Amino acid sequence: MKMETVVDLNTPIASSLEQVLECFDRELRSDLPFVNRLTAQVRRYRGKLLRPKLLLMAGRLTGELCHDHVVLAAVVEMVHMATLVHDDVLDNADVRRRQETINRLIGNEGAVLLGDYLISHAYHLCSSLGSTHASRRIAAATNTVCEGELMQIENRGNLELTESDYLEIIRRKTASLTSLCCELGAKVSGADDEIVEHLAAYGLEIGMAFQIVDDLLDLTATESETGKTVGRDADLGILTLPLIRFMAEASTSDRTKLAEVLSNGHPQKTEQVRAMIGDSSYLDEAMGVARSYVQSAIMHLNNLPDNDAKTSLITTAEFVIQRRQ
Amino acid sequence: MKMETVVDLNTPIASSLEQVLECFDRELRSDLPFVNRLTAQVRRYRGKLLRPKLLLMAGRLTGELCHDHVVLAAVVEMVHMATLVHDDVLDNADVRRRQETINRLIGNEGAVLLGDYLISHAYHLCSSLGSTHASRRIAAATNTVCEGELMQIENRGNLELTESDYLEIIRRKTASLTSLCCELGAKVSGADDEIVEHLAAYGLEIGMAFQIVDDLLDLTATESETGKTVGRDADLGILTLPLIRFMAEASTSDRTKLAEVLSNGHPQKTEQVRAMIGDSSYLDEAMGVARSYVQSAIMHLNNLPDNDAKTSLITTAEFVIQRRQ
Repeated sequence: MKMETVVDLNTPIASSLEQVLECFDRELRSDLPFVNRLTAQVRRYRGKLLRPKLLLMAGRLTGELCHDHVVLAAVVEMVHMATLVHDDVLDNADVRRRQETINRLIGNEGAVLLGDYLISHAYHLCSSLGSTHASRRIAAATNTVCEGELMQIENRGNLELTESDYLEIIRRKTASLTSLCCELGAKVSGADDEIVEHLAAYGLEIGMAFQIVDDLLDLTATESETGKTVGRDADLGILTLPLIRFMAEASTSDRTKLAEVLSNGHPQKTEQVRAMIGDSSYLDEAMGVARSYVQSAIMHLNNLPDNDAKTSLITTAEFVIQRRQ
Repeated sequence: MKMETVVDLNTPIASSLEQVLECFDRELRSDLPFVNRLTAQVRRYRGKLLRPKLLLMAGRLTGELCHDHVVLAAVVEMVHMATLVHDDVLDNADVRRRQETINRLIGNEGAVLLGDYLISHAYHLCSSLGSTHASRRIAAATNTVCEGELMQIENRGNLELTESDYLEIIRRKTASLTSLCCELGAKVSGADDEIVEHLAAYGLEIGMAFQIVDDLLDLTATESETGKTVGRDADLGILTLPLIRFMAEASTSDRTKLAEVLSNGHPQKTEQVRAMIGDSSYLDEAMGVARSYVQSAIMHLNNLPDNDAKTSLITTAEFVIQRRQ
């Protein structure tokens, strides 16, 4: 499925989405030209806008979209952009959405600061709302995202990482934020607690699927397909789902071989890893896990009214496992 | 003056300061042992606690200290700690308060994330308050701090940096936060706008003095005196006040010589720079500028009642230019 298809399905939220981008740009404007040049580069990374769309669709599914939805959608995109900029420092990546990364452009120091600038503006914008509720929930989610990323760093080079620890890492670093987007969208619409919980669960499960697919693309896709540096996980000794299953189930000699590949200093580990697991069932198995998260996500929408926003949420869930970038 | 002298002068805020540290520790506690080990290391960097003390003293000077003062004092210390952790990544420093820096312990990636964790918890804690006012003001200040740091990066290697641009950089990166501490302290105490403004101005001016002295110590002190890596500014091609005056006023041949020293790849630039300006009046002049900021800061307290908190604020201002660490 191409992204354009999903964009068409954004019709119910199209005008609000325009306002989100305006709000995003307005918030980041600085009196310093150097800062504006950097945030202009960040805008070029804009891709799927998954998080603001989730927030708006959840809001639209459960009520009328209002000013607070727009502000919060801009906030979650800003938080996400900050994590992208800092992730590129962590991964030492050179390319993001076919553009040079900030660390590549102005060095790691500038990238750290620009990420800080984005997160600071996210909270600045969020605290323009009437209540502290959303700020509190967003800060709790960013606490969790940082913990997930720190867990991942702790487990670099850990060739015995369990599947449950892997799932816990991606729950924290990715799914906690997509879940919150759906939760806040419904909450701001004034939905009942039970409905808010269903939407939060939907967001959590598609976040899980999204990250599993992201990790699969890092292992199997090319830079020209994804538009960003690939093969980083293997290079950094980070095990993801197919490799975890391989390490748990393959023969001792195959496991030893993979462990050697992952531990050595070869610059193109990913090529070697691909050669080893390309024919195995582990890639399909991982995709199967992602697919069950998506199915389970969609089930959480069952008792909600059928409208265009619901259709968009279902299609978004399916897109998450069909995308190639 | 030794730090102990200042600590004695903290008597009016001593019990609140204890609560601030408890609040700080409680907020950062995680269910992940790895995260707790990292935040334990951050606690070892605790030094002067300048920012929470300013907030509490300003609060005490203008009213009774309450729960919100304690929470906000913990928040500003957390924000400050986050900037320290990220600064050490920026400066590639190895030592902070006689302890290994986080980047030295777990690499730059971990340090970036731990800084993010601290800033996220700062906003989480801040949004536990009843209103968004403090969150909004703190986020505005962190926006400004990031801009100041980015301006500094933009001007690395700029040997024509003007004194007014230097002052603008330190106003944003340092003085904006010390100013806000005093502003919030008085605001939470319910002080009149005019008094709040005087305290914000006091905080701004001692922030300016503090950073000028910090830059002087980086140029003139030893690591054993300051407890942190010194000589970073010259190594990174960052001009600070004495060198800016030197470049503006020295003979053409001396300026050319300094420019050569700062532009070359010599690992101990600071030694060479010290040899060049050690006998000049520029170090004293810079200290003179810091001293006038302190005098001007104290003037802003003139119309406030004489009490122990006022004495502490005056002594703190004097300490800022007398410290050697």
